[in-house]
Amino acid sequence: MLENLFFPENVAVIGASRQPGKVGHDILANLVKDGFAGDIIPVNPAGGTLFDLKVYPSLREYPGTVDQAIVAVPKPHVLSTVKDALAKGARNVIMITAGFKETGSEGAELEAELTDLCRRNGARLVGPNCLGLLNTGNRLNSSFAGSLPRTGRIGVFSQSGALCTSILDLAEGRNLGLSKLISIGNKADINENHMLEYFAGDPDTDVIVGYLENIVAGDSFIKTATDTCSIKPVIILKSGTSKAGQKAAASHTGVLAGADTAYGAAFKRSGVIRADTFEALFDYATALSMQPLPKGDRVLIITNAGGPGTMAADAVEHAGMTVAELETNTATSLREKLPAAASVGNPVDVLGDAPPERYADALLAAQSDDSVDAVIVILTPQAMTDPRETARRIARSIDGSKPVLASFMGGKEVLPGRQELTAASLPDYESPERAVAALKVMYQYATWKNRPPRVVTRFRVNRRRASRIIGRNISNGIFQLNESKAKKILDAYGFNILPGRLITSAEEAMEYARGIGFPVAMKIVSQDIVHKSDMGGVKLHLATVQQVRDAFDLMMMRILQQVPNARIEGVYLEKMADPGLEIILGMSRDPQFGPMLMFGLGGIFVEVMKDVTFHLAPITQEEAIQMLKSTRSYGILEGKRGQKGVDIPAIATGLQRISQLTTDFPQITELDINPFIVGDIGTDPVVADARITLARPLENKRG
Amino acid sequence: MLENLFFPENVAVIGASRQPGKVGHDILANLVKDGFAGDIIPVNPAGGTLFDLKVYPSLREYPGTVDQAIVAVPKPHVLSTVKDALAKGARNVIMITAGFKETGSEGAELEAELTDLCRRNGARLVGPNCLGLLNTGNRLNSSFAGSLPRTGRIGVFSQSGALCTSILDLAEGRNLGLSKLISIGNKADINENHMLEYFAGDPDTDVIVGYLENIVAGDSFIKTATDTCSIKPVIILKSGTSKAGQKAAASHTGVLAGADTAYGAAFKRSGVIRADTFEALFDYATALSMQPLPKGDRVLIITNAGGPGTMAADAVEHAGMTVAELETNTATSLREKLPAAASVGNPVDVLGDAPPERYADALLAAQSDDSVDAVIVILTPQAMTDPRETARRIARSIDGSKPVLASFMGGKEVLPGRQELTAASLPDYESPERAVAALKVMYQYATWKNRPPRVVTRFRVNRRRASRIIGRNISNGIFQLNESKAKKILDAYGFNILPGRLITSAEEAMEYARGIGFPVAMKIVSQDIVHKSDMGGVKLHLATVQQVRDAFDLMMMRILQQVPNARIEGVYLEKMADPGLEIILGMSRDPQFGPMLMFGLGGIFVEVMKDVTFHLAPITQEEAIQMLKSTRSYGILEGKRGQKGVDIPAIATGLQRISQLTTDFPQITELDINPFIVGDIGTDPVVADARITLARPLENKRG
Repeated sequence: MLENLFFPENVAVIGASRQPGKVGHDILANLVKDGFAGDIIPVNPAGGTLFDLKVYPSLREYPGTVDQAIVAVPKPHVLSTVKDALAKGARNVIMITAGFKETGSEGAELEAELTDLCRRNGARLVGPNCLGLLNTGNRLNSSFAGSLPRTGRIGVFSQSGALCTSILDLAEGRNLGLSKLISIGNKADINENHMLEYFAGDPDTDVIVGYLENIVAGDSFIKTATDTCSIKPVIILKSGTSKAGQKAAASHTGVLAGADTAYGAAFKRSGVIRADTFEALFDYATALSMQPLPKGDRVLIITNAGGPGTMAADAVEHAGMTVAELETNTATSLREKLPAAASVGNPVDVLGDAPPERYADALLAAQSDDSVDAVIVILTPQAMTDPRETARRIARSIDGSKPVLASFMGGKEVLPGRQELTAASLPDYESPERAVAALKVMYQYATWKNRPPRVVTRFRVNRRRASRIIGRNISNGIFQLNESKAKKILDAYGFNILPGRLITSAEEAMEYARGIGFPVAMKIVSQDIVHKSDMGGVKLHLATVQQVRDAFDLMMMRILQQVPNARIEGVYLEKMADPGLEIILGMSRDPQFGPMLMFGLGGIFVEVMKDVTFHLAPITQEEAIQMLKSTRSYGILEGKRGQKGVDIPAIATGLQRISQLTTDFPQITELDINPFIVGDIGTDPVVADARITLARPLENKRG
Repeated sequence: MLENLFFPENVAVIGASRQPGKVGHDILANLVKDGFAGDIIPVNPAGGTLFDLKVYPSLREYPGTVDQAIVAVPKPHVLSTVKDALAKGARNVIMITAGFKETGSEGAELEAELTDLCRRNGARLVGPNCLGLLNTGNRLNSSFAGSLPRTGRIGVFSQSGALCTSILDLAEGRNLGLSKLISIGNKADINENHMLEYFAGDPDTDVIVGYLENIVAGDSFIKTATDTCSIKPVIILKSGTSKAGQKAAASHTGVLAGADTAYGAAFKRSGVIRADTFEALFDYATALSMQPLPKGDRVLIITNAGGPGTMAADAVEHAGMTVAELETNTATSLREKLPAAASVGNPVDVLGDAPPERYADALLAAQSDDSVDAVIVILTPQAMTDPRETARRIARSIDGSKPVLASFMGGKEVLPGRQELTAASLPDYESPERAVAALKVMYQYATWKNRPPRVVTRFRVNRRRASRIIGRNISNGIFQLNESKAKKILDAYGFNILPGRLITSAEEAMEYARGIGFPVAMKIVSQDIVHKSDMGGVKLHLATVQQVRDAFDLMMMRILQQVPNARIEGVYLEKMADPGLEIILGMSRDPQFGPMLMFGLGGIFVEVMKDVTFHLAPITQEEAIQMLKSTRSYGILEGKRGQKGVDIPAIATGLQRISQLTTDFPQITELDINPFIVGDIGTDPVVADARITLARPLENKRG
């Protein structure tokens, strides 16, 4: 259905203007100049002609039906204009006019009315507050962005109209072709999800590039992006990575997870390649649209200069890839072709006086060698260097089996070579480091594409019991679940909870402790006490009945001394866990992307080092293990220098169970198991403390 | 004296050739074409004329004296040619010919002979294996690098000749001017130190750019670079950052400090700006050569598009700088000048239809505002945008009080604007992120320049005692000093050592323990036991005479069971330290830069997290504190969540004492204090274990 957006039968420009520089003029001019083959229908109350086209004073006066309506009239006229267009059968409306949602609630209401109007009439709406769209395939330029770029295989969507103009200008400067470009503006109707889906099926597009400031709907984004990335690469620049700030949150997980963390996790999950800079966006797109994906990470460097070769090797190593070595027989036969002073190590140094043939010989050797997955070709413009002819020979030697990226370093001298490279679909970069960065992204995308199928384990749990506890607390207006309640829910989801319960008197404590056996731990239960241990609200290793009695009395006295009005429910008394490694498992629900799981080592590792990783639920066993491996402290789990390792799969299982619990219950907004005590391999980790925060029902959301 | 290199009275090209593409031809052609005003003397056995110049069959036949001799003859003729040149009074020799040190020992001998020959005759030698040099000031092009670049304020030296060609070509492409460029090749005589010193005093050079693969002499580099950086900025790209690998070292410090760490520390110490990529080298140089240094880190962004403004703000925050806010009265008066929809927050958004005046108004406001230290101006080419005129108005509005960097984003459309910017000495970048990266480097350099004077404390120590211990051990052929010896040396340098000594029998141990008081620690002393604790060679918290006896007997038995031939000197028995935080202080002597100090938290922080920092000795109190602050685990030293902090200045003092010790004794190659136990503020930290490695005297360096 979006097909029609880019292939309309005719286009009406409502608000067409005589005055260059006015949006309504420039759109009409672009449509005419760039040679759109369908009918172009200018509309302006003044009538007359424009670019030899009859101008209709109103769309109502146009005799036929209208397919695409581009609206560039002042805001007060927008609704009536759109009604006219819909009455004429418009299947899509491109709303250039601004002043809607972005200006406040009045604008938002008008935008909603407009969207509703289009929807009821079965028309799609682009914008409002957008720049339009263009399609190089049928020479459609329904925008005020400037001229059509050259035809190519990159499809672009952008939430910023201004960035579209820079993208078009940059593409022109780099000799890059685009298939289609669309400015999605306020995204009242058409948004990133539609565009991903459309470009995924678009035969003219090989690589999708997007600029986003936010995402309309997190869950459908992940689904759509995953599907799209399975077909072709998607590269997104997401701005606003810094201001996100910390959310006000009750849990560690909530505090540690900024909004941008969730975007990072969502992109990673769905295979989206994230560009951190404007240049990277097209550095990556160029490589992905021109070259095949690498099968591995072994990179061979071919250079006519030692220094830049070393720079490239540095970059390969820093990127976490491997500097390849030619196999012995390839190296031997290449050595015969090159001068004695040349090096067939890596970098392969074809020497400063290298004629084009030497590059070709080295490249052919690299392509034939099973130890090489990708090739970086570097050229510096030395006295004997012929950049143009070298580029041609390189282009002719390419067999398409492996990605080849070039860096012809310099300016004017190497320019003819660069142009040859681009013409031959060989990506070229100003510096070896940028070529390597693009190659790294290709390798990561290839790895994502070849990932094993995701199998999310469903554990047998007592969902009804958890549901009852959650429901009862919400009914009672309790949204912060204390240790005792949180543990009951975790128990229902198969976590190992030590015997323990809420106790309200010293006598009860003594009797209960005798029943479960020593040593025991005692913790205050009160919604008014946040940092229990700082207040003397935690006693561990109580070994006798007498110690239990003393601890109880002392705790009551001290807490009430410090917080006289504290509402104390009692103490939680439980059997002490065996010693082990303390870790934190948590979940913080992102408003866009849902449950985001956290893992980190306990104590200072989280509090000081911030050494934590995140992953969106639902999570697989393999992804959970990856979460652990991504922390700097992973070595501690494995065991080092005589220290025993802990049961790593058991931690992964814990994460998977939290994943299942928080996917099952959207009411859970935050969850912390802190600490989760993990022991030797084969032992079941213990939930030593936990808390859960539930969502307040919507009607309560006042203050 | 180097002045003469760039301002010779005349130049002889020995090996001048008729054949284009030959080095000897191209140099002559460059000298002639680029218009060097002094005499040019071609020399070739064939004689005749070249470029209307008489060619001398031999330099001996030239009647006058020669100032600069460029030698491009085959290697066998090099020595006689240089002799001829020196006989003619040559003050400098530029040796283009290759095949010297870089090809092995025979070449190295010839190079040494050549260097010696020049030195004895009072001539300077550039190269061998170099590309020559050039000076835009007097139009001297003594190179085969291509045409002279435009005149500018950037001086370049490069260890790679090939990179010189790319640099010249890049400068041409970016409209960048250079003052002088020199290819220093094998650095037989002229090296980076000479060039730093020369460019520091060169009135034509404002910014120095260098490419290095190694450094000739570490200590003189630091001194020269520090002096130079105090005068003008130095930016260096150092390649070979990845291959360094781990040195085989006995200490933690040695293992953790790769060779590149030392370069990083040396650059940081001496104020050198390090570029990680070829592009960054000139991104930074452009900004530093064109704009004043910022006085602070508050960056105001002016943009005609929201998205790119956000991208710039992200980059500012990620760079650790501050997104500035205009002061209220500046904001108010700017608001009056801009349309209602414009934003005077940060970014200042002058809107998509901004004419040049709006940019000028915003820029004038930013310059007048005391809350702004630097300005980034972003332009996207929208329908109403006039990039050229906007650039002109920006240029006219600059008052030079604060750095202004631009990013005109796009290609062909913005090109006229970019050219205006460059012409007006306004640095322009393809993306906002690159502009911010350059600004960050300017800010860091400004901070370095304004650093407080370095005052290295000299502690009163017992240097003679340390000297005696070191001397005696070296005489006895002992280079690995055990705990007992290492502690004696540290004791002499004012470290807090607990009572302890080497013990050889159980009886002696019991008696000694009774004397110093319990609890005590016992550690095996044997050069054959590396991992003492893994072998049962460490017993802590021994509280009674009986426990001491048992520990001694058990330790002897177990060690000999595991390493039957271990040479056991005895055990080291000492009073237990009070509990505290375990940290590691260390030193590893870099062959180039001397003692490199290390700090890290003990145990897993070093072993798993590699959370360590390095600094070259001698170190100041302030630098030592900075070392602590640069670790991710610094919060642990400060104390977190009810944990008490430790005595941070005491740790800094420990680092300073190691600095003094290892500066005093070059014989110490490695030193580890592990752990150094630090307690509450006001307590003296304790050296709980230590080892020292001494250098083997040179004559022993056989196997």
